Amino acid sequence: MTDERQKYLHFLQIPTRWMDNDIYGHVNNVVYYSYFDTVVNHYLINYGSLDIHTGHVIGLAVETHCQFMAPLSFPDVIDAGLRVGHLGSTSVRYEIGLYKITEDLPSAEGYFVHVFVDRETRRPQPVPELLRSALEKLIV
Amino acid sequence: MTDERQKYLHFLQIPTRWMDNDIYGHVNNVVYYSYFDTVVNHYLINYGSLDIHTGHVIGLAVETHCQFMAPLSFPDVIDAGLRVGHLGSTSVRYEIGLYKITEDLPSAEGYFVHVFVDRETRRPQPVPELLRSALEKLIV
Amino acid sequence: MTDERQKYLHFLQIPTRWMDNDIYGHVNNVVYYSYFDTVVNHYLINYGSLDIHTGHVIGLAVETHCQFMAPLSFPDVIDAGLRVGHLGSTSVRYEIGLYKITEDLPSAEGYFVHVFVDRETRRPQPVPELLRSALEKLIV
Amino acid sequence: MTDERQKYLHFLQIPTRWMDNDIYGHVNNVVYYSYFDTVVNHYLINYGSLDIHTGHVIGLAVETHCQFMAPLSFPDVIDAGLRVGHLGSTSVRYEIGLYKITEDLPSAEGYFVHVFVDRETRRPQPVPELLRSALEKLIV
Repeated sequence: MTDERQKYLHFLQIPTRWMDNDIYGHVNNVVYYSYFDTVVNHYLINYGSLDIHTGHVIGLAVETHCQFMAPLSFPDVIDAGLRVGHLGSTSVRYEIGLYKITEDLPSAEGYFVHVFVDRETRRPQPVPELLRSALEKLIV
Repeated sequence: MTDERQKYLHFLQIPTRWMDNDIYGHVNNVVYYSYFDTVVNHYLINYGSLDIHTGHVIGLAVETHCQFMAPLSFPDVIDAGLRVGHLGSTSVRYEIGLYKITEDLPSAEGYFVHVFVDRETRRPQPVPELLRSALEKLIV
Repeated sequence: MTDERQKYLHFLQIPTRWMDNDIYGHVNNVVYYSYFDTVVNHYLINYGSLDIHTGHVIGLAVETHCQFMAPLSFPDVIDAGLRVGHLGSTSVRYEIGLYKITEDLPSAEGYFVHVFVDRETRRPQPVPELLRSALEKLIV
Repeated sequence: MTDERQKYLHFLQIPTRWMDNDIYGHVNNVVYYSYFDTVVNHYLINYGSLDIHTGHVIGLAVETHCQFMAPLSFPDVIDAGLRVGHLGSTSVRYEIGLYKITEDLPSAEGYFVHVFVDRETRRPQPVPELLRSALEKLIV
């Protein structure tokens, strides 16, 4: 892992898929956000005990952003880096970097803001304790 | 069309699809960006003569952003509103609002920055003349 | 509507999206199935009172098939034709044809088999009455 | 690898993504086909020297089929098994099995028929020599 990647505290490998490529031969800009919510939710489920099927508290996206620096293309494999930029009482701002596994510099960087809400009422809820401690480990 | 929608100068109706819904029953945040690049490219092709198959100049996304204000859910139909926030020599910033056809207030608002490049070299190119005049019509 | 289309008893217009196109410039084969489950579920919700959010009975895909006869490409608009080939006690076989709105012959034809199950136990259930009468209207 | 999996001669691991899940909490039927064309094209590119960006011969899907036996759900990881059921002069029939990495029995099985065509004219072409020898290795 390079110095550059040390900005991120957790990584998930995400292989591209055939249909990620668009007509211009590179991964479509939309698909980058699918890598974002994959690395985020994978972490929440595996490290923070988020129960996406029956848990009372779920995370809803309220704001996302991405800057595209270099193209990706199937069959590239991506290292998705994750850190927490801000952890509030009911929300969290994730910061994400997407790297080709063969490159030092990111192909894209962005952020993603989750607000945690009650599954039924969709009203904001405090970040559950196990989730909070998992997220605290990613604060820079 | 409400006063609120008059912020945008061009509209395209985009029906949701079954698989746009995620596990929480609403359109996944990623899919909003697919509405963004659909309204943008639909305009470029139909009003600006962009030739996505063989044209020398193509548009690449360099930055995108979205704020999510209210949920969408299949089978909702969306009015996607478009305007141009900035038109530079080689790039353009689109601003987009997504409305349920039955609602006055937007479900989401965001922007999308295209840089126009040569299809082969991927070096920035002046916005072609027909594209430029189509985009000028959307400047607020 | 041409004679050819009279094979189908219900139609839904589905516009293509930018990211439906793959690296070869045409709609990716995978996306055709998203048109299939959109025309099917749109009909079930609007004509058969299927409640995808809280209903006890849901439809699960058990088999799908598609033959691709002619390319589609963004920004084409599709007429998706639907009929019912077989309606059993707990399952239904839909038959679907996808036509460019400007063409008489289909771009693709296929089928899709739904089994209706209990949302929790995922055990087969009789087709609910309102759904059944909506589906009977599409039997050829 | 179990006896059951020995029906297939090549495997690729494909992790699910967050947005693969649909409103019913499992991977949407459409997405299975994206696993199909990912394992197929990954093999063609890496073992058969298919050049998807500039090669003269490309593979077009003419028929696909899938039977769904057991649900998949994010964050499952999939073993996608591949074999060749028939190799003709200008076409090939792939047979694919999708397994959860933790399961012996497949979640889905299906096939996918590619015809190889000239990129410009879209007329059928003989399977290129390097591709053919790669595909012969997968004949059962």
